[in-house]
Amino acid sequence: MISIIMGSDSDLPVMRQAADVLKALDIPFELTIVSAHRTPDRMFEFAKTAHERGINAIIAGAGGAAHLPGMVASLSPLPVIGVPIKSSNSIDGWDSVLSILQMPNGVPVATVALNAAKNAGILAAQILGAQDETVRSRIAAYKQQLAEGVAEKYRKLEKVGYEDYKK
Amino acid sequence: MISIIMGSDSDLPVMRQAADVLKALDIPFELTIVSAHRTPDRMFEFAKTAHERGINAIIAGAGGAAHLPGMVASLSPLPVIGVPIKSSNSIDGWDSVLSILQMPNGVPVATVALNAAKNAGILAAQILGAQDETVRSRIAAYKQQLAEGVAEKYRKLEKVGYEDYKK
Amino acid sequence: MISIIMGSDSDLPVMRQAADVLKALDIPFELTIVSAHRTPDRMFEFAKTAHERGINAIIAGAGGAAHLPGMVASLSPLPVIGVPIKSSNSIDGWDSVLSILQMPNGVPVATVALNAAKNAGILAAQILGAQDETVRSRIAAYKQQLAEGVAEKYRKLEKVGYEDYKK
Amino acid sequence: MISIIMGSDSDLPVMRQAADVLKALDIPFELTIVSAHRTPDRMFEFAKTAHERGINAIIAGAGGAAHLPGMVASLSPLPVIGVPIKSSNSIDGWDSVLSILQMPNGVPVATVALNAAKNAGILAAQILGAQDETVRSRIAAYKQQLAEGVAEKYRKLEKVGYEDYKK
Amino acid sequence: MISIIMGSDSDLPVMRQAADVLKALDIPFELTIVSAHRTPDRMFEFAKTAHERGINAIIAGAGGAAHLPGMVASLSPLPVIGVPIKSSNSIDGWDSVLSILQMPNGVPVATVALNAAKNAGILAAQILGAQDETVRSRIAAYKQQLAEGVAEKYRKLEKVGYEDYKK
Amino acid sequence: MISIIMGSDSDLPVMRQAADVLKALDIPFELTIVSAHRTPDRMFEFAKTAHERGINAIIAGAGGAAHLPGMVASLSPLPVIGVPIKSSNSIDGWDSVLSILQMPNGVPVATVALNAAKNAGILAAQILGAQDETVRSRIAAYKQQLAEGVAEKYRKLEKVGYEDYKK
Amino acid sequence: MISIIMGSDSDLPVMRQAADVLKALDIPFELTIVSAHRTPDRMFEFAKTAHERGINAIIAGAGGAAHLPGMVASLSPLPVIGVPIKSSNSIDGWDSVLSILQMPNGVPVATVALNAAKNAGILAAQILGAQDETVRSRIAAYKQQLAEGVAEKYRKLEKVGYEDYKK
Amino acid sequence: MISIIMGSDSDLPVMRQAADVLKALDIPFELTIVSAHRTPDRMFEFAKTAHERGINAIIAGAGGAAHLPGMVASLSPLPVIGVPIKSSNSIDGWDSVLSILQMPNGVPVATVALNAAKNAGILAAQILGAQDETVRSRIAAYKQQLAEGVAEKYRKLEKVGYEDYKK
Repeated sequence: MISIIMGSDSDLPVMRQAADVLKALDIPFELTIVSAHRTPDRMFEFAKTAHERGINAIIAGAGGAAHLPGMVASLSPLPVIGVPIKSSNSIDGWDSVLSILQMPNGVPVATVALNAAKNAGILAAQILGAQDETVRSRIAAYKQQLAEGVAEKYRKLEKVGYEDYKK
Repeated sequence: MISIIMGSDSDLPVMRQAADVLKALDIPFELTIVSAHRTPDRMFEFAKTAHERGINAIIAGAGGAAHLPGMVASLSPLPVIGVPIKSSNSIDGWDSVLSILQMPNGVPVATVALNAAKNAGILAAQILGAQDETVRSRIAAYKQQLAEGVAEKYRKLEKVGYEDYKK
Repeated sequence: MISIIMGSDSDLPVMRQAADVLKALDIPFELTIVSAHRTPDRMFEFAKTAHERGINAIIAGAGGAAHLPGMVASLSPLPVIGVPIKSSNSIDGWDSVLSILQMPNGVPVATVALNAAKNAGILAAQILGAQDETVRSRIAAYKQQLAEGVAEKYRKLEKVGYEDYKK
Repeated sequence: MISIIMGSDSDLPVMRQAADVLKALDIPFELTIVSAHRTPDRMFEFAKTAHERGINAIIAGAGGAAHLPGMVASLSPLPVIGVPIKSSNSIDGWDSVLSILQMPNGVPVATVALNAAKNAGILAAQILGAQDETVRSRIAAYKQQLAEGVAEKYRKLEKVGYEDYKK
Repeated sequence: MISIIMGSDSDLPVMRQAADVLKALDIPFELTIVSAHRTPDRMFEFAKTAHERGINAIIAGAGGAAHLPGMVASLSPLPVIGVPIKSSNSIDGWDSVLSILQMPNGVPVATVALNAAKNAGILAAQILGAQDETVRSRIAAYKQQLAEGVAEKYRKLEKVGYEDYKK
Repeated sequence: MISIIMGSDSDLPVMRQAADVLKALDIPFELTIVSAHRTPDRMFEFAKTAHERGINAIIAGAGGAAHLPGMVASLSPLPVIGVPIKSSNSIDGWDSVLSILQMPNGVPVATVALNAAKNAGILAAQILGAQDETVRSRIAAYKQQLAEGVAEKYRKLEKVGYEDYKK
Repeated sequence: MISIIMGSDSDLPVMRQAADVLKALDIPFELTIVSAHRTPDRMFEFAKTAHERGINAIIAGAGGAAHLPGMVASLSPLPVIGVPIKSSNSIDGWDSVLSILQMPNGVPVATVALNAAKNAGILAAQILGAQDETVRSRIAAYKQQLAEGVAEKYRKLEKVGYEDYKK
Repeated sequence: MISIIMGSDSDLPVMRQAADVLKALDIPFELTIVSAHRTPDRMFEFAKTAHERGINAIIAGAGGAAHLPGMVASLSPLPVIGVPIKSSNSIDGWDSVLSILQMPNGVPVATVALNAAKNAGILAAQILGAQDETVRSRIAAYKQQLAEGVAEKYRKLEKVGYEDYKK
């Protein structure tokens, strides 16, 4: 089971994409709000016990001085995926990216692209798939779909010509 | 089994830290050179077949316009951990970080900090530990060691005072 | 013949400007979608065989962690022009620029400005014009037009005065 | 009393400058190591109880993804001064600065310049001086000294001329 | 008493958030416009005498080449909190942040996040609270409120589910 | 024939790598100093007449506010390859990169990576190879060499193991 | 007499602010379009002869890879004021700023803030005022006006209070 | 007469280059230390009276949060040339550049490149030359020298060949 957490409900429009892709890949998940700065006790409790509740990996999204993913990673033995969010109080997203990515030796956060909650979901699935053939084949099928989506588009583009192509 | 690859042997002083930490955690790995730009055929072959050879996760390090982690991620169903390297041809590491981190939807790379191959190794172990209690307890022990290392230092510092403290 | 490729149909509004200027310069071209990350096999096939199909130069546009131009350059002996695109998932375009520009020794990509697909088209024409007087004279004429366009404007501006000037 | 903490003993050469200036201003302080990522329990305990131990303000230094100042600020009612450190694993200090400065609404960190532990010490003194005339007059005297140090230099420079001036 | 100053009335929509939070915390304040560049005499007068008028701390907001906080800090023995403002003439806020944060040794400015006037107000209260139990307990209560605000949201989110959650 | 120019003889240690690779590829070239800012007349004359002297493409290197590649491109119908140089007066190379890359519509510069004069030479060869099978096959052979160089290294690495590998 | 030039009529909405302030200060000026990249011959002619036509200083505005100010400075003995413009093809204005500011030794450009054509006009007046008391007193009067404008605002703000203040 | 000021004697190795070039151009100058942050009274006095002492233009160098040039410009009717210095406490010079360049409307600073005190001296001479033919002809002669210096180098380079060229 994957746990998806975020620092604020303003992150939900981005973070729910992680939930959507996990649902599509048929992988169980939970989703809630845990703020490192506003609810540090809850964050501690959550991070220290997640692995005891059957969670296999954690997806944590935050923006600005984004400490949630790193702090959870310091408290849990589980792999933590960090989603830097370009929130309204962020300087073009650089603060979100750097304060999640640049963790010190010993405490990694698996960082994905700015706002890339969808990729966080896929990565969580791949982590399960690392030792689970069934999940891995679902990922392979998902990638196949991506390729087919592109194929449909280039066939259409080559047929109608770029001047008449409508997305 | 974890596969550690890098674009050039000049990345080895950084990337071997991934190998060292995996060895310390008693996790089997292989390590070799695969260049996306100089040996694209080898890279294709490697990435398409790694999961068939019993590889569970891939650690890929590269610098500058660093395409190796992302291309391997596009070709493999396995989780790929990217290590941005501050190589001599890099602009302060920003190119390495951005060209590994900013992957499009559908193809995540689990990016760690600049030059943080050690963290890549730990993350690879955590990925195995996501579904393997034995590995997970080794990670918990490793974290315990980190805490004890700090404890030793602050006890010494508090004892001798900051003016006489020697690292 | 010039081949124009892009990673996604969302890049078309930018990339079609390369096609438009090649059409204006009467230079034959093809245009299609090739995604490095979603259709890596197609990309391999495309890049390895383009020169056998009579293609003289390739224009490749992509955004974010933009690997298409560099990977095509690693697989083809032809000159590859890279167009960094400020796509929605890009950090102000810096990722697109750096992951196209900062190629390692041995595998150059001729990078143009952010979103500058028009300049990519002109550069492709100049590449043909390097050894073809007819094309080169068309480029000279094109540049003459640019100068005349500016001349028209400064004559109007100097005549009506800056306070009454309307673009 | 001021508490000076840092994430690692490698931060000591920078952070001891805070201690030195507090000593010079005759303000009591303590100094120790508290790591947000390696000793999160210690950090929690420290931050939650500092004000009960008679601490009036906290100076916290950290580098890279620097979560120590912000996490302490979330757990303590005291003013927290953050010192971004340009540690070896930092990207030119930008990560340290942004992950300390860009705190969300509700949880401020009083951030000083990169590596400016000396200024952190002065700021801590000014915080005490906000309601303590004795301390404030020491700060005024300190500033007077700064001005006199400059005065000595410009008098010498104007006397010997810039070509013979030796620092 | 806290003094809130800003370089221009265009900074008021941001800076009034400092006033609002101080009002909520029942801390007396004044608010006015002082421009370092357009009214340097007024700025000098203000900064040199603020502590004589019973001011305990100063909050100064400015954008672009933002010299107001640093100049006031050089002229006053009081703690100065700087609010970098992302004004219309700023380059994404970087100029505002760096010209407030990067003060030389001897003259600190307690810098908060870009546009974070609310946090400046809270920090001013914490400075008073450093030696005033009553104020400190109001801050603790304020933090408690923050935690409860988050708690309300996660309870709702967990109840209705993320797909039906409305902010 | 390729013309290699640079703004100053301090650029020669970088720019001669373009000459060296052209020599290795058996492509005739000339190399000299042309400064946009110190010898603008020479630059005008050079750029306006290069194509009449049998030059097919121009490689121009410059650092800081690097105007040489763009100005030559505005004056010549030939393809111009720009090499941004991280000179001593450059801000980490960003000024060199941006003032060469970000040319306006109508006047492209084929920009390569920071200090990548070797790649500029290869790109110049590829431009000739766009319509010249002999040159193109030399480039293919050069790429084959690159691959073999990597192959030698990974074979050695796999044989001796990473702990005993010496570069 | 001051000459105001710009690379394109799209720069006019910014650059006309230089004209407006010069008009207000009663200083004669001319304004026209000169493109370094589209009309290099015109630019050469303009820059080489401006001082012979009675021009005392030149204001040049441009965006992106902005070569106009620097090239004019290399061709004219007059002081050149550069206005970096955040044009549509610019990367947040960084390219405009760096390619105008970072001129090599021997060829200065007096650079003002991004889009600050008004300041360019004032600086041109100050340059005339360097040796002309009449102009200098007009500048002093202009600064006096700025101070009075601020004074009006803070008086109003202090009277009505910040909650009822309307800009 | 030109006045050269700097914030600290550590800026002297850079700032003396302004003095050296003014000496070479036979233009009288003075040079001293004026710190905005450590000697604000001296700075006020200096800036308010410089024009009464026969100073025609001011060159001010500073690093980090560099307020000296802008504050002097706010207090003096004279043109102020700002030299951003990459001091030891600067973040790669970005803070120095932005806090000098990005002045608000009404108060320009004529900013030159990072550490470019030599160009500041030349610009000061050009400001005098704006209305003084004698000075202007010295500048023209200086530029001629620059061109001849380059000419000597390219003649030598073309004669000995790039492989035997020694700087």
